[in-house]
Amino acid sequence: MQHSPRGFDGYVFDLDGTVYLGDRLIPGAAEAIAELRQRGARTVFLTNKPLESRKAYAAKLTRLGIPAEEKDVINSSAVMADYLRRTAPGARIYCIGEPPLLQELREAGMELIADPRVPGCEVDFVVAAFDRWFDYEKLDCALQAILKGARFIATNGDRTCPVEGGVIPDCGGIIGAIEGVTGKKVELVVGKPHELTVQTAIRRLGVPADRCLMVGDRLETDIVMGNRAGMKTALVLTGVTRREDVPRPGTRPADADPGRPLGVPDFVVDSIRDVPALHP
Amino acid sequence: MQHSPRGFDGYVFDLDGTVYLGDRLIPGAAEAIAELRQRGARTVFLTNKPLESRKAYAAKLTRLGIPAEEKDVINSSAVMADYLRRTAPGARIYCIGEPPLLQELREAGMELIADPRVPGCEVDFVVAAFDRWFDYEKLDCALQAILKGARFIATNGDRTCPVEGGVIPDCGGIIGAIEGVTGKKVELVVGKPHELTVQTAIRRLGVPADRCLMVGDRLETDIVMGNRAGMKTALVLTGVTRREDVPRPGTRPADADPGRPLGVPDFVVDSIRDVPALHP
Repeated sequence: MQHSPRGFDGYVFDLDGTVYLGDRLIPGAAEAIAELRQRGARTVFLTNKPLESRKAYAAKLTRLGIPAEEKDVINSSAVMADYLRRTAPGARIYCIGEPPLLQELREAGMELIADPRVPGCEVDFVVAAFDRWFDYEKLDCALQAILKGARFIATNGDRTCPVEGGVIPDCGGIIGAIEGVTGKKVELVVGKPHELTVQTAIRRLGVPADRCLMVGDRLETDIVMGNRAGMKTALVLTGVTRREDVPRPGTRPADADPGRPLGVPDFVVDSIRDVPALHP
Repeated sequence: MQHSPRGFDGYVFDLDGTVYLGDRLIPGAAEAIAELRQRGARTVFLTNKPLESRKAYAAKLTRLGIPAEEKDVINSSAVMADYLRRTAPGARIYCIGEPPLLQELREAGMELIADPRVPGCEVDFVVAAFDRWFDYEKLDCALQAILKGARFIATNGDRTCPVEGGVIPDCGGIIGAIEGVTGKKVELVVGKPHELTVQTAIRRLGVPADRCLMVGDRLETDIVMGNRAGMKTALVLTGVTRREDVPRPGTRPADADPGRPLGVPDFVVDSIRDVPALHP
């Protein structure tokens, strides 16, 4: 692969708050990505959201002016399905999640259990995800499966998901509910900032980590993950983080959640539009 | 008040696992309580459950052979209603809970808010309780109310509730879900083992704490609460705790939840039947 004359060889872009906000593209996003691709750089898009299939996220990007295929998108459903396929082929899963995630797990060869409370029914993993149809009955199913010995893993740790005009509960609420009834901590959260996600992205790019730039709006997922993987990182200010929230090396904002370490970005830019000007 | 010739002057009894299991009286419970009352001792019943009204718990006890009136029962709904009446009269409440709790709060003069997401709608307290109709929409309502500044309190911290053949999710799951989406810890849990509950019981008995015996099956609620209040405590083995779980002073079982300190009972007895034989 030929190195770009300037800039990085590979770029990993967060979606919500970085490339678009809801259904609105961040101004300059399409042009910035077109320029990077024209230079020969590789690009991949990364989201923690398990609400749509990768194909649907690729279609959305294409519709908004950034041509993309299914293979250009990595979401936490895909990382979860890939993790289970490799480590627990054919496992019995009780999943709190929406249909696209269930479909992804089914396609990965998992056996989906509808009701772990049925006598004699055994479950290997409870998988918790963002689920807008979460309810008491699903919580009871998760509790009974874990009491019978199932392991407890989750797609993503985000507390909330940004939507037009605010935020709504994300997977963090489901994890909290299951931890609250079982007294057990979730064992593994595969989505950002876990290395399972960043390694999937780096493999997809086919570029060494130190020649990649991670671009995102969240210090506690995008940036910390890039830091740990040995990538350079760029924080954009079009999402949840404001310039005054950015920690100087060695410091933490006063209200930072002690359970979720913050990353320290190598670059802070106003928006994705400024990314083509960054170089290693 | 005349002191009993032997035994204590006041007795506080936990219900589930101590006096009855589901709809079955613990053998000897009715006789034991009748004997204590005949000696002139006062008795009160204490449960964390907000699922029924105090009147309903009294009716159940009476039906099972232990005559009881509404005033003989304290549950976490009553303690919550009493707390809010005293500290925040007329407060606006978003409550995740079942109808008997909503009714108790309404009777205490609280304004119940159906949907805190309505623009301009303000909420003073989110009250979380055991609610078998808990769902994503209620979680979203709690999140939005807390984002707008509501305080977050709960009736009880129990992870699960024992039922015929097992356990089902209790208020701990709802607290966990709200903590998971807001990143904020619940401010106050009024039920056992909080002193608001034991003080209510002691006032109801009209007997000094050191002349009372707290009888229950849970180290982390009944016994720790009695310890802190300066009462003597008796652990019964008819509920969730087995004899080998009982810590010696200064020790803790290996799997004890570090967030929930365990009490150390003054007496360990097989069942409530043995309580009349205990003395200070």
